[in-house]
Amino acid sequence: MSKAARTGRRQSGAAMDHVEADGAAMDHAVGHGDALAQREPAPISRRRLIGTAGAAGAAGLIAGGAAGAGVAEAVGTEPTALTTVGSAYIPFEGTRQAGIVQPAQARGHLVAFDLVKGAGRKDAAALLRRWSDAVRTMTAPDRPSAPAAYDDQVAYDAGPASLTVTFGFGRSFFGRTGLDSALPKALAPLPDFAGDRLDAARSNGDLWVQIGADDALVAFHALRVLQKAARDTATARWQMSGFNRTPGTTPRPMTGRNLMGQIDGTNNPKPSDPDFEQRVFVPAHGSPGWMADGSYAVVRRIRMLLDDWDHLTVARQERVIGRRKSDGAPLSGGTEFTPVDLGKFTADGSPAIAGDAHVRVAAAASNGGAAMLRRAFSYHDGIGSDGTPDAGLLFVAWQADPLKGFVPVQRKLDGGDGLSRFLRHESSALFAVPGGAGAGEYVGQRLLEG
Amino acid sequence: MSKAARTGRRQSGAAMDHVEADGAAMDHAVGHGDALAQREPAPISRRRLIGTAGAAGAAGLIAGGAAGAGVAEAVGTEPTALTTVGSAYIPFEGTRQAGIVQPAQARGHLVAFDLVKGAGRKDAAALLRRWSDAVRTMTAPDRPSAPAAYDDQVAYDAGPASLTVTFGFGRSFFGRTGLDSALPKALAPLPDFAGDRLDAARSNGDLWVQIGADDALVAFHALRVLQKAARDTATARWQMSGFNRTPGTTPRPMTGRNLMGQIDGTNNPKPSDPDFEQRVFVPAHGSPGWMADGSYAVVRRIRMLLDDWDHLTVARQERVIGRRKSDGAPLSGGTEFTPVDLGKFTADGSPAIAGDAHVRVAAAASNGGAAMLRRAFSYHDGIGSDGTPDAGLLFVAWQADPLKGFVPVQRKLDGGDGLSRFLRHESSALFAVPGGAGAGEYVGQRLLEG
Repeated sequence: MSKAARTGRRQSGAAMDHVEADGAAMDHAVGHGDALAQREPAPISRRRLIGTAGAAGAAGLIAGGAAGAGVAEAVGTEPTALTTVGSAYIPFEGTRQAGIVQPAQARGHLVAFDLVKGAGRKDAAALLRRWSDAVRTMTAPDRPSAPAAYDDQVAYDAGPASLTVTFGFGRSFFGRTGLDSALPKALAPLPDFAGDRLDAARSNGDLWVQIGADDALVAFHALRVLQKAARDTATARWQMSGFNRTPGTTPRPMTGRNLMGQIDGTNNPKPSDPDFEQRVFVPAHGSPGWMADGSYAVVRRIRMLLDDWDHLTVARQERVIGRRKSDGAPLSGGTEFTPVDLGKFTADGSPAIAGDAHVRVAAAASNGGAAMLRRAFSYHDGIGSDGTPDAGLLFVAWQADPLKGFVPVQRKLDGGDGLSRFLRHESSALFAVPGGAGAGEYVGQRLLEG
Repeated sequence: MSKAARTGRRQSGAAMDHVEADGAAMDHAVGHGDALAQREPAPISRRRLIGTAGAAGAAGLIAGGAAGAGVAEAVGTEPTALTTVGSAYIPFEGTRQAGIVQPAQARGHLVAFDLVKGAGRKDAAALLRRWSDAVRTMTAPDRPSAPAAYDDQVAYDAGPASLTVTFGFGRSFFGRTGLDSALPKALAPLPDFAGDRLDAARSNGDLWVQIGADDALVAFHALRVLQKAARDTATARWQMSGFNRTPGTTPRPMTGRNLMGQIDGTNNPKPSDPDFEQRVFVPAHGSPGWMADGSYAVVRRIRMLLDDWDHLTVARQERVIGRRKSDGAPLSGGTEFTPVDLGKFTADGSPAIAGDAHVRVAAAASNGGAAMLRRAFSYHDGIGSDGTPDAGLLFVAWQADPLKGFVPVQRKLDGGDGLSRFLRHESSALFAVPGGAGAGEYVGQRLLEG
């Protein structure tokens, strides 16, 4: 049965239209090997449908943006079978790496590796090639039926399930590999923030791997394959696992909720924004050259003090955030995507959005236009040593320059955000994420062979 | 947008056919609020489809049995939209508790609670009533739009997503509540096994809660609601979280794989087996009376020594298990569901299934017919203190009597199973899981008010 199932998917995979979207910000598209849909006349073209859904999904939905993205528009016009969860794929190769503009998947792993003693530039290059080749195989719609020797077969029957793997380099990598001259200025250590309670053992690292997939076994499998491929060259320094909504849990794509129950990510930059590109990605002719089409990822483990938060009434929580909890509408009126009116006053003369409300302090208007693309996973690692939930957000923010993205925003939040009393930043890291690999290339090749 | 989405689902929920299957073993069925399917003529009846799929799903697929169950038969005959993941529901009320015969969901939490000092029978009864009422609300297809005061709204936009919550009582509960006379004989402590490396802090407990849902936020939400409802009466003793395949990741329902990559659960008892009922459930007139239609759950955290396992060749792994890794076929020949031929020899005269192969030692034929219904979640909690993956199986086995289910099987495995070198039982618990609650009742009422 397993063999037949595999054959079935491989055939539909072979017949699959390998979609590439046209949108400037989308150099990776999501494909679907849905045999059912292909048998039936589709009222709107598959190509257009997927492109649209992909763009909507990439439109900055943090934490749960994956829910139903890529299929919701199909409901009622082009029935999409559940098997699309497994067969959906995101190509590994491209100008940019995958796992930045696509919606965050249902399951994610963030792992930092340190090079072992004695490993240098050549070893790192060989590792990045092994890693890239493994990811190229695992993300392909038509995976080989005979797994490689290092494959534990945990994902043997599954499709790629929108697997993405994204690689980055930490500041310490450059010294250890003799590449100091290639160190980007933007990798300067992040400043200290007053509210930080950072655990050094879970911060930073030479190399970073971000794994996302809509199936937990597919994500686990990718993690194990990469860990095994790292052996002798690098060992895991820290590892964190998180989640977002399972595709299809909400009736249509929605901005996700975080574990405080708040709709989170409404104001995320959208690929349709005129300055999206320049905010999120290093230009093709940017500096250093090896970072062309790359981005910088700020990774923070942000513990939510959920027991304290839940003691507040919903009305009080809404004042802390500045949005209605049920639907995310700003307290200045309208619906979720109505621009926040920071100047609005209520009938009793007080500001509709409080002075220390999160949306006011985080607003681009309050930060000279600073913005970043947030793409997070929630985490929940049981009960912490203090008896409260060890839960919160694996915050990942993408920007062309951290000094114009995360740093100024966090500086303001650190001082004036009413929400910060309910958050604790427990770890922090910054990684340079180079552009993607083309055919036959590996990620980081321009750095390591430059 | 959120409001509209909610209204949309509530309407489809109201129109939903609340299915009850006829199968003897199925007193909970899965419902789907799929408006799309209702608009279109269905070639096979929805009732039959769901009943069939439910029964197939309940047919003992451990670890990943949820994948696609309940929908796979629909592909090609009755298109099912992705939104069924969220709108699928399993009724809380019934003769038996939910979460035993249904396929294990994509996300699970196992939590043990201990009563706080001073809390007695009355407090426990009030807690079980609060818990039952909360679960009744959370599992309903048409959830109230105004969340209760204790609700953090994390699952506000989502459907029930096949949420089940199952409650059990540990041996220590009876002494603490003055109910010693109601203690079932079957709750006698499990014997020690030579291979056990048990952590007392993560073993046993007064009360047990098993949560499963196909969406991680829905499962998290249920956990938080129940933890908050427990306040002042009971506190969490231990908590473990796990996962199975996301629905739709494989092209059709398949027996799941564990984190060793092995197909796991092929030989699980099936509801169609003539002795399924008597093996898994306490009879309606069984003893003690309050356990009528209940079951006993053995819960073991089984760490898999994955680095050691992965050092074996696939051929060697297959000899340890006694099945082919790719498709689960026994090494004695055939396909996955071909009965294992323990007497078969290969051409060179050696047994096709090795003497210490897992399938031989675990086979019912080797254990006087002992069998249990296994319904597990995989777990992966990052890197253990020894540097290897803290990963394995949250093993949950259901039986009418542990002395005729888990105990004799584990006794044999403990001594003779070649697989045991790659496993480490790190925690253990045994819980009495009473029958389900009817309308207006709470789980455990017959014990606490008996």
